[in-house]
Amino acid sequence: MNPRVQEITGSLIREIAAKKTPGCMDLGLGEPSLKPTMSFWANAIRETEKDGLRYTLNAGDAALREAIGAHYLYPGLTSAENVCVMTGSQEAVYVVIKTLLDPAKDELLLIEPAFPAYAKMAKLEGAAVHSVSMDPADGFAFDPERILAAVGEKTRLIVICSPCNPTARVITREAVHTMSEGLLARGGDPIYVLHDEIYLEQTFVDDAGHFAAIYPHTIVTNSLSKSNALTGLRLGWSIAPKEIAAAIVKTHAWVTSCASTFSQRVAMEIFNTPGALHEHAGWYRDQRLAVNDALAQSGLRYVPVEGSFYACVKLPEGTESIEAAHELADHHGVIAIPGIAFGESLEGWLRLSWVSPIDDVREGIKRIANYCQKDHSLR
Amino acid sequence: MNPRVQEITGSLIREIAAKKTPGCMDLGLGEPSLKPTMSFWANAIRETEKDGLRYTLNAGDAALREAIGAHYLYPGLTSAENVCVMTGSQEAVYVVIKTLLDPAKDELLLIEPAFPAYAKMAKLEGAAVHSVSMDPADGFAFDPERILAAVGEKTRLIVICSPCNPTARVITREAVHTMSEGLLARGGDPIYVLHDEIYLEQTFVDDAGHFAAIYPHTIVTNSLSKSNALTGLRLGWSIAPKEIAAAIVKTHAWVTSCASTFSQRVAMEIFNTPGALHEHAGWYRDQRLAVNDALAQSGLRYVPVEGSFYACVKLPEGTESIEAAHELADHHGVIAIPGIAFGESLEGWLRLSWVSPIDDVREGIKRIANYCQKDHSLR
Repeated sequence: MNPRVQEITGSLIREIAAKKTPGCMDLGLGEPSLKPTMSFWANAIRETEKDGLRYTLNAGDAALREAIGAHYLYPGLTSAENVCVMTGSQEAVYVVIKTLLDPAKDELLLIEPAFPAYAKMAKLEGAAVHSVSMDPADGFAFDPERILAAVGEKTRLIVICSPCNPTARVITREAVHTMSEGLLARGGDPIYVLHDEIYLEQTFVDDAGHFAAIYPHTIVTNSLSKSNALTGLRLGWSIAPKEIAAAIVKTHAWVTSCASTFSQRVAMEIFNTPGALHEHAGWYRDQRLAVNDALAQSGLRYVPVEGSFYACVKLPEGTESIEAAHELADHHGVIAIPGIAFGESLEGWLRLSWVSPIDDVREGIKRIANYCQKDHSLR
Repeated sequence: MNPRVQEITGSLIREIAAKKTPGCMDLGLGEPSLKPTMSFWANAIRETEKDGLRYTLNAGDAALREAIGAHYLYPGLTSAENVCVMTGSQEAVYVVIKTLLDPAKDELLLIEPAFPAYAKMAKLEGAAVHSVSMDPADGFAFDPERILAAVGEKTRLIVICSPCNPTARVITREAVHTMSEGLLARGGDPIYVLHDEIYLEQTFVDDAGHFAAIYPHTIVTNSLSKSNALTGLRLGWSIAPKEIAAAIVKTHAWVTSCASTFSQRVAMEIFNTPGALHEHAGWYRDQRLAVNDALAQSGLRYVPVEGSFYACVKLPEGTESIEAAHELADHHGVIAIPGIAFGESLEGWLRLSWVSPIDDVREGIKRIANYCQKDHSLR
């Protein structure tokens, strides 16, 4: 067997999430609790009845790719040739990492705390992973100087998830500018930035930075999972400079051939409907305000929620996050993800998702605050 | 960039298929021309309206996996834990190859002529590929002795596509028995057999062999693409011994996370409907009889059509298959795939698919026969 597969551990997030029992407040999985809008499905079903359900091109339906390029309008990345449609942004991220890194010599740079999939994918490919931790004292804000200082001779790809899972921080325009200048000033072979924008529609600040807007070696990944409550549609994409996009399509073609034609038809309806990608933005905005209130009242130390649908809260000094997550699930009726799942730098913290009904989120935060106070007073 | 991606060429099959113009007889792509049965969709749509469209478990919906295990009833492989649902059998084959081969030391053994994806996937993983050609004089029949003789110290996985794309041959029960005995007699670490059964419902002989029926180290891949005209559903699976299945799920989890929930719901309806997997079997049987007639009348030399929906025909001695395929597409209004796409052993042959309306298939075969006669007389 492939030793890389054997070495990789399963998902700690899913392990804790699986402990959910009835009555549990679920602040675990990063999955919208909203329902998808079925009106986007009617045309897709009619088309399937009429034309059947054949393969699309490997890269995806040309009209859909054109619509995606035209929707985001990233300079130089606006045409169908820049886009590859894939099985969720999970496949998109996997294929980009696989395509861009030469396992023999290239290194992936991760900004921690980080969604664990990036490192696991790189390790599955046999590529080296180096990581740089953002400063907890600064609420894990993206720090361009710190990131640039961590770029080494072997760094070929930097993955940045902003709005961030797990920290809920958003990289600023200024930080993107500083990083872009710094990376370009190095000269030599380009260092690629994979900007995972899956939480784009959950941005709650005005100065959000987008690498694709100014840095020429950017690949963007995204999907309809979070924006439209369609995790189960498995419809994502990469947007990349044409030469890179062609290589991405080649890898993708051998991994899954093409994304679901039906999912692509639903996606086409969404991109054809003005405002559809933002259909849940109001709900998330309201939810975030309520979560901010609940966090402020809880007495917990937390990271400012600038984007995504998470919040990180600090456990009492010396508490191990895995132990706390198990105790919370087993004895306090709350599912929350241990910070260690996202790297050493988030040890001692919990990641909460806040997509459950707001009363559950409030109650969950209260239970965690109670647990922390009790726990703290015992020490 | 990853040099393995750069070295891999695109799909010759898709390159030729793309030359299709109106009026062309399409004997190119391996895609059913039938329409899917929409009654399988009604429940899936209702369920999506009711429950939304969330992720399933990485391995796929438990009830669907149970239904798949129970449908095929391969000894020891009948439970949900044996099954991993994936994005078409393309991802299933990719993930199995990736999971089972250690690129540092293991070799994949291919039986040529072979569907080109297997070798490209292995090369993408950096794993060595060795191949053994079946005998054209014997119509490329699966020859267990020849295959066993090609098994070396490093062979860890043998891929067998039966019913075969491209040869349309089916491995016999006796051949599977001989191979199973031979492989078990070697001792040492198990040599796995990946039996790609994607054309199972297009089996036209009575003595078809199934590795999973007797060989303990078998992994089966299959999908709904060919049986139910659902290539665009991207719904396939692997069936494997539990320990192997667990490793397969781990790899799959990082590649695509999970298959489309909607596609899984449609699949559930199909597995819940007795006979649904065979819904098109009658059509293929009739079509195959007509194709056999047309081939017999054509004067072309062809390989017996025992399964799948292809037929291989011989070009005049000395004709290069790529040149012939281009000439046929450009000047004779027929799309057919050059044999070289499936390995050196099929050079000088064409692979025809026969899923277009039967009159088109007949006309296509006639045009190829005319081309071969003319071409031959010119030499």
